[in-house]
Amino acid sequence: MTGSTDQGAYLKEHGQKIEAAAARIEPYIRRTPSLTTDLDERLVLKPECFQVTGSFKARGAFNAMLRLKEAHPDTRGVIAVSSGNHAQALALAARTLGVPALIVIPADANPAKVAATRAQGAEVVQEGVTFANREERMRELKEERGLTLVHPFDNWDIIHGAGTAARELLLDHPDLEAIVTPLGGGGLTCGTILAAKSRNPGLKIFGVEPERADDARQSLEAHRIVALTQAPDTIADGVRTTAIGARNFEVMVERQLIDGIITVSERQIEESLLTSWTRLKVALEPTGALPLAAYLSNRIETRTSTGKVGLVLSGGNANLELVSRLLREGPQAL
Amino acid sequence: MTGSTDQGAYLKEHGQKIEAAAARIEPYIRRTPSLTTDLDERLVLKPECFQVTGSFKARGAFNAMLRLKEAHPDTRGVIAVSSGNHAQALALAARTLGVPALIVIPADANPAKVAATRAQGAEVVQEGVTFANREERMRELKEERGLTLVHPFDNWDIIHGAGTAARELLLDHPDLEAIVTPLGGGGLTCGTILAAKSRNPGLKIFGVEPERADDARQSLEAHRIVALTQAPDTIADGVRTTAIGARNFEVMVERQLIDGIITVSERQIEESLLTSWTRLKVALEPTGALPLAAYLSNRIETRTSTGKVGLVLSGGNANLELVSRLLREGPQAL
Repeated sequence: MTGSTDQGAYLKEHGQKIEAAAARIEPYIRRTPSLTTDLDERLVLKPECFQVTGSFKARGAFNAMLRLKEAHPDTRGVIAVSSGNHAQALALAARTLGVPALIVIPADANPAKVAATRAQGAEVVQEGVTFANREERMRELKEERGLTLVHPFDNWDIIHGAGTAARELLLDHPDLEAIVTPLGGGGLTCGTILAAKSRNPGLKIFGVEPERADDARQSLEAHRIVALTQAPDTIADGVRTTAIGARNFEVMVERQLIDGIITVSERQIEESLLTSWTRLKVALEPTGALPLAAYLSNRIETRTSTGKVGLVLSGGNANLELVSRLLREGPQAL
Repeated sequence: MTGSTDQGAYLKEHGQKIEAAAARIEPYIRRTPSLTTDLDERLVLKPECFQVTGSFKARGAFNAMLRLKEAHPDTRGVIAVSSGNHAQALALAARTLGVPALIVIPADANPAKVAATRAQGAEVVQEGVTFANREERMRELKEERGLTLVHPFDNWDIIHGAGTAARELLLDHPDLEAIVTPLGGGGLTCGTILAAKSRNPGLKIFGVEPERADDARQSLEAHRIVALTQAPDTIADGVRTTAIGARNFEVMVERQLIDGIITVSERQIEESLLTSWTRLKVALEPTGALPLAAYLSNRIETRTSTGKVGLVLSGGNANLELVSRLLREGPQAL
């Protein structure tokens, strides 16, 4: 696919794959609503906190698992590294389709998230796993047991599945002028780009990163994948990836299909999280509030000053202590 | 209308008025989504926290104001007693239609709610107003200024407007076997009964009260309107009414159209509020969580054991200190 030089054909091909993904996963996922709010009539929310497992990750996970079962009905199982929403989504998709799933999680991860992954029926390996060696441990286990890797973002099936959220948003609101997504590894952003621009190449797509996790912005500027040297210290734990993937780099940078990468401060993330819980009445996780943070800081350009903006709010599996503190004391980060 | 003895004609007439209300208010209110969740596949939520002003009250307020403007284009204004969601909704509807609104609120009411009502453009009178004399003060001001009372629940236009929420829910999910609503003055419950039973007389409708505010249950048993001697001490501040209205008594008791009144403890309300914020990802106020409390305590009867149940979650204007405490410490009430 990287070899294609015709942008129109590239978008058309990926757009068709997103349509196929939508039909494939339809029995397993939820068509989340598109919400308007009292906050600003220009805004349309796509709250993926209401998705199966509480995040958009179920879309990609079911697409990848259904494709795998189709191609390899006798698969011995899947493996992934994740302590977050991808782990829970993949575990559910695998269990639903009767495939074993092994999730590699660093030993010091949040026990609640480990328990949630186990509750979805996955085997979890934590012993001897650190943030530094987790990819290596995963590859060892993958070889040992003959498992198939389902990468959380550098995987076309995951990207196409993720794109089905923007597809639904545009079916509900074809007049959007821009769509904004959180940007971590790039799966949701690239899926959104391909779903939107295959329908309407003029639609603008923006990705939002915490300032402390701005590797995608750096990669866009440097025109090569820039990796952070350690996991970034941000409350937006869904985008604590150190680098975007090769496929994500291809879509956003090589193909120049992203219209901008916006960075927001920890305080702006806290403020937008509080706004979502108290004014939008949507219980998001910090990562899910990144697009709102960019919008509230007036960073989204549209063709017209009244142009409608869609925000893909990625998930709602929040740290309750953090939310409790925010509700009581307001934003504290500097 | 009270004189009609034919239940079918009674339901048909009110059903038509709810249809007319739906068409009338359509440009002003939001069609809130119907949500399914990971909690229980039998449940369908109607989250009115996403409604204009954050509660279902906007439906009745716009219906009443539009009817008033139609009948009396030269009205001098409207008046109501309320410190909560009705006040905000009526203030917005009046301002939208260019009609003055005067809201009478006891002097010791929550300043945040008073500010929210003023922010919607209403005049607020608090001086010398107490919980005990507020109705009397309202009648004095009504006469002095020649205003029209818009009662929060004992008013057919308010009831028919409130019924449009259940109408939407049934358009989305015609196979529901029961619908559950919070029950305070009875406006939402009666609107839901009339919307549902005019379509399907076999559909069961339940109202939910806090144990500490069980005047409707007492009225149903005694077959007369029983009033509490003082405002009940419940965290569900949207149902702190002391008695249901005459029209509400007519529908629920005289016409025997309610299938059951369920009471829940303060602890059950806290638990269901926490469940809605953390598992359903919907930021409700305590009153909005009453139907969920009844459901979680297995109190909703359906024809079949797998029958689908709709919960009308009335609003999301929550006391943030309460929610912060619940998220941090869990339910505390006994």
